Amino acid sequence: MPDVPASRPSGAAALVPDSLPRPGGVLAGQRRAVARALTAVENGLPGADVLVDALYPHTGRAWRIGVTGPPGAGKSTLTDRLVTAFRARGQTVAVVAVDPSSPFTGGALLGDRVRMDGHAEDDGVFVRSLAARGALGGLSEAAEGACDVLDAAGFDVVLVETVGVGQGEVDVAETTDTTLVVLVPESGDAVQAMKAGLMEVADVFCVNKADKPEAARLVRALRATLHLRPEGSAQPAVVTASALAGDGIDGLVAALDGHRAALAERWDEVRAERLRRRVRRLVEGRWRRAFWADGRAEALARAVAELDPSERAPHRLAARVLGE
Amino acid sequence: MPDVPASRPSGAAALVPDSLPRPGGVLAGQRRAVARALTAVENGLPGADVLVDALYPHTGRAWRIGVTGPPGAGKSTLTDRLVTAFRARGQTVAVVAVDPSSPFTGGALLGDRVRMDGHAEDDGVFVRSLAARGALGGLSEAAEGACDVLDAAGFDVVLVETVGVGQGEVDVAETTDTTLVVLVPESGDAVQAMKAGLMEVADVFCVNKADKPEAARLVRALRATLHLRPEGSAQPAVVTASALAGDGIDGLVAALDGHRAALAERWDEVRAERLRRRVRRLVEGRWRRAFWADGRAEALARAVAELDPSERAPHRLAARVLGE
Repeated sequence: MPDVPASRPSGAAALVPDSLPRPGGVLAGQRRAVARALTAVENGLPGADVLVDALYPHTGRAWRIGVTGPPGAGKSTLTDRLVTAFRARGQTVAVVAVDPSSPFTGGALLGDRVRMDGHAEDDGVFVRSLAARGALGGLSEAAEGACDVLDAAGFDVVLVETVGVGQGEVDVAETTDTTLVVLVPESGDAVQAMKAGLMEVADVFCVNKADKPEAARLVRALRATLHLRPEGSAQPAVVTASALAGDGIDGLVAALDGHRAALAERWDEVRAERLRRRVRRLVEGRWRRAFWADGRAEALARAVAELDPSERAPHRLAARVLGE
Repeated sequence: MPDVPASRPSGAAALVPDSLPRPGGVLAGQRRAVARALTAVENGLPGADVLVDALYPHTGRAWRIGVTGPPGAGKSTLTDRLVTAFRARGQTVAVVAVDPSSPFTGGALLGDRVRMDGHAEDDGVFVRSLAARGALGGLSEAAEGACDVLDAAGFDVVLVETVGVGQGEVDVAETTDTTLVVLVPESGDAVQAMKAGLMEVADVFCVNKADKPEAARLVRALRATLHLRPEGSAQPAVVTASALAGDGIDGLVAALDGHRAALAERWDEVRAERLRRRVRRLVEGRWRRAFWADGRAEALARAVAELDPSERAPHRLAARVLGE
């Protein structure tokens, strides 16, 4: 393990397959090692779990910010502005664009990260799209594993940008420290965000395209709705910005900083809770793969084929498969 | 079982708790029994699984059409037009509006079914929102269970309208016979739909608001992209409509009919495959609830709290919880 500093536990690192980058390379922030580790996590390559486990004790230093909201809200432009703002105060930044791509499109639609080109020459910025097709534990585990890699590699801020509004986005938002929900003053957006459950996970709301006349109305509607949140839960900040013009970014960063400061007070508890949730998800994924791999998928197919249609009953069949 | 016709299996019906409607009432199409059965499925009330099992052998007659697409695409208006079209040819129609509501908003945002008021006096139409907060097996099982109830109750067509674009919508789409994806000629929509995996599940695309100048471009882009689908997979139809004006509805219905006719040729196979997938999902849900209820959630919390942070490793912990 020549490249693993002696002060770091080498036991776990020793188990990482040779096909994967050394944990030490990631910890040293070597860009090639980081990129290869992300590929391993994204595709669920053999040993990716061991690699993440080896890196995990070196995580917890980066600030993980989820950026989510409906299509067309201007998330990418806003993310780009945030990168510039964090860089201006000397922080290094990684951006993970999570894309729930499908086997059919094969991730071919990724790569509209052109806006990030302004940071292409900056070693303090790392941009990566994540399709997460083969990841162990699905999209949110891939995103969380990617954040672990970038956190362990020493980035100060990791921005996780998700596409769309749905359960996948909510799941990913639950793995970050601070969740920024971007909305635009167009009819229905706030309602859609609430329907998708983004209201619960939002720590900061940013009403983008705030130069539009309906922006003030959306801000009011948001604040009114937020009062419906249960007693005792933290009230998310609501700020306005115009990402394209670059207006309001300072206020947005201040709101994000405010949430981080509040989080710092109960950081250990937050980390432990997140680990619990993650292990639950991993346990379920491991069980699922093992259970169906053991001939049970075929047995179920036979049972369905052989049953008389009048005897088919989904719940009873499920109980039978489990031997209940 | 006075209300269960003798020709129907009464064994399963006998196990349905008295707090739930009799299967016979649903099979007779009694609206109150149907509404109560849907409530049971939506909230995962005790015995809802037995009720669905009892109804299941009487399903397979209704045509289940999923209507999905990004927010603002005009799904509700188009659904309303389809109801009118199906009614005009004498078919009875049920509409299930699936809403991934959250505990916080409590489904308060449901109920924008005002447009359906035109059918309020029509006994051949049944409209129901589904929040699916407590459903066994999640949103897609709730939607599928609701379709079973409405199918068994004798509706000819069941339209399942989903909100948003995400994994939840794709999951629900997989439970219907024909999936209609509604898009509007606004930048990014087609790309968003593809990213969310709707491209795979679409059987018919409808470009709504087709009077807009960009509509022709979207149709061309869709057709070009569809050529990327794997060899041998069926090519979805692409039609245009203007739901608000009522234009293009005949063509849309013809495209949907075309898909149904193709499906009829391999109906038994489709039904069996869907049942297999559903049982898998139910097995996983049952196992998950039983596993964590058995003191394991608390044991995991203790393990995380007691571990030295340098020893924390998500995948190793998951293996330990499973006793691997």
